[in-house]
Amino acid sequence: MFINDDPAISDADRVLEIQHFENVVRAFQNYRLHSLTAMAKRRRDMTKIPHEHLELVTPLLEPKLSAAEECVRKNAAVVSVLLEGHDTEASAPAKGQAYRESRVAESDMDKVRSTLRQFARDWSSEGRLERQLTYDPILAELEQRFSHLDEAQRGNLHILVPGAGLGRLAFDIVKRGFSCQGNEFSFYMLLGSHFILNRATEVNQFELYPWIHSFSNHLNASAQLNAVRIPDVLTNGIPSTAEFSMVAGDFTEVYGTSDNEGAWDVIVTCFFIDTAKNIVDYIDIMHRALKPNGLWINLGPLLYHWEGMENEMSIELTLEELKYVVRKKGFRLENEKTIRTPYASNALAMLKYMYDCDYFVAVKE
Amino acid sequence: MFINDDPAISDADRVLEIQHFENVVRAFQNYRLHSLTAMAKRRRDMTKIPHEHLELVTPLLEPKLSAAEECVRKNAAVVSVLLEGHDTEASAPAKGQAYRESRVAESDMDKVRSTLRQFARDWSSEGRLERQLTYDPILAELEQRFSHLDEAQRGNLHILVPGAGLGRLAFDIVKRGFSCQGNEFSFYMLLGSHFILNRATEVNQFELYPWIHSFSNHLNASAQLNAVRIPDVLTNGIPSTAEFSMVAGDFTEVYGTSDNEGAWDVIVTCFFIDTAKNIVDYIDIMHRALKPNGLWINLGPLLYHWEGMENEMSIELTLEELKYVVRKKGFRLENEKTIRTPYASNALAMLKYMYDCDYFVAVKE
Repeated sequence: MFINDDPAISDADRVLEIQHFENVVRAFQNYRLHSLTAMAKRRRDMTKIPHEHLELVTPLLEPKLSAAEECVRKNAAVVSVLLEGHDTEASAPAKGQAYRESRVAESDMDKVRSTLRQFARDWSSEGRLERQLTYDPILAELEQRFSHLDEAQRGNLHILVPGAGLGRLAFDIVKRGFSCQGNEFSFYMLLGSHFILNRATEVNQFELYPWIHSFSNHLNASAQLNAVRIPDVLTNGIPSTAEFSMVAGDFTEVYGTSDNEGAWDVIVTCFFIDTAKNIVDYIDIMHRALKPNGLWINLGPLLYHWEGMENEMSIELTLEELKYVVRKKGFRLENEKTIRTPYASNALAMLKYMYDCDYFVAVKE
Repeated sequence: MFINDDPAISDADRVLEIQHFENVVRAFQNYRLHSLTAMAKRRRDMTKIPHEHLELVTPLLEPKLSAAEECVRKNAAVVSVLLEGHDTEASAPAKGQAYRESRVAESDMDKVRSTLRQFARDWSSEGRLERQLTYDPILAELEQRFSHLDEAQRGNLHILVPGAGLGRLAFDIVKRGFSCQGNEFSFYMLLGSHFILNRATEVNQFELYPWIHSFSNHLNASAQLNAVRIPDVLTNGIPSTAEFSMVAGDFTEVYGTSDNEGAWDVIVTCFFIDTAKNIVDYIDIMHRALKPNGLWINLGPLLYHWEGMENEMSIELTLEELKYVVRKKGFRLENEKTIRTPYASNALAMLKYMYDCDYFVAVKE
């Protein structure tokens, strides 16, 4: 359902895209078995330690592993709902067929697990702190800059959110009456956002256990086994004057087209711009896609996603260099500040990745 | 020089150990070429972007890349001193021989780069903040618990530091008059500590550029190109009554022997215990190796190094479970607290790994 039907795309590219989508579906389908296998490996490891150690740790590890396995099953039940309607003939294993044949790469399973943590960040009450740190300054900026518009007028403003992920920021923007389009490249995120935006009918309908897969840096078993409930809010309360859409595809391909020139009032990038292979290209496209005096609101670090990849291009600018290029490309910078925040992190863990994000508003001149 | 000559070790194990040592030497030897190749890849990537982008970023990236390449050469000069005396016949490439033949794995080169950052943490004035957060509480604990001893008496106390890394904590302990033995398994760290403890003859003798290899999350080019100077202190000021030694080898193999039973007054572990495949084994060995009423001082997270490795055992306890086992094994816990600290991090970067370390003193009962 997310497959691009743009006639300009070649058949070969379309086949690659379908294969990629099927890989992602397969990764979700294998989540349960893959995760239970990792737990079984831990049980095997226990049998290898001296008997007196085993006697000591079994009362600790046995109930923890059993509980974690139960959490895997509960997560898998949510994943099943997420996958409903997306099973393709190629990816759906025949009944009774061994999953082993379609074992997925650890890196793909990492993305499934990361999607679970992302649900906690975007759609649970536990994620509120991170959202307050990162989404609230953006929402406040919009409220302040467009305070002269009433709700119906806000619907005429078109805001683009590239890298929309699981869609919470885009939804929060729409909820304030602005029309908003989220754009996302990752099929993991697209499946996730489609699920949460279209399948959830009750607040706290689904229970997830995002922290069970890592056994490191936990204060205690209950912190590891903590549940989050999603969604913390239903997505049916959208003002009728606001339009909301999610568009699949690579940002440069979708928004680098001539029909996007001068089409957008505001572009909001949150933890997005460092996904570029050539960040100057992103800046170019955003400048062209904005209306005169349009706003680009940015918040995030500069963790270049393609750095060090042997067969991929990666252009890496420092923050100072980025701002030089942004100005040269025809933006005026306002309201620059630093925002310290973790990202999709377990608040109770003994290790957190702490980002000193840059925040700015770039006005198209 | 770090090869174990214990006659109990089999010839096959000795061959493996020599091969491993040669791999590490080869990784250091390839540092310059490997790093310059990564910079050259960035120059190639620049040629792939549109001409107008190139014109814009060349004045930014060209001087930064040239400076980073010069920093690689300066780092390589320090690495050459570090390698002096360690060239083995097998690992030293013949003059003019292409290095390509001995290209090393990215994971090995990661450890070389990590050694450079570790020098900044342990032996530069820039690393002082991290050392204050992590080493100072340990040193204060020793000062306070042994305040009744004069300097000469302190030399009779034998303190063991497993996972001694580049040796700074062990040195700081010795400098206070205690006899101290550092133990380290990694040849990267052993080569590094041997270099800094034996080759440095002046404060700030060597200049290193630990942050040049990542182009992500920098505020500006000068933050990326920042030099640190090592050592910030000379290691010749050791009280004559204190003994100082560094012992190479796996902690469980070296200290699990009967001649270590009741041999140590204090064991200090700082960012160490999560290197265990079976952490209960570490606790057992420490309990046996301590004298009655001996102290185990611990500071660190629980980032289990072997978690998720398919062919390695890994027993992972939460902090609460760890403390349960520590008590069951015959320790009394005192002075428990949490210490928040980064580890070998660039203070100016936009991303930091922040650890909420647990600190405790375990008294052997």
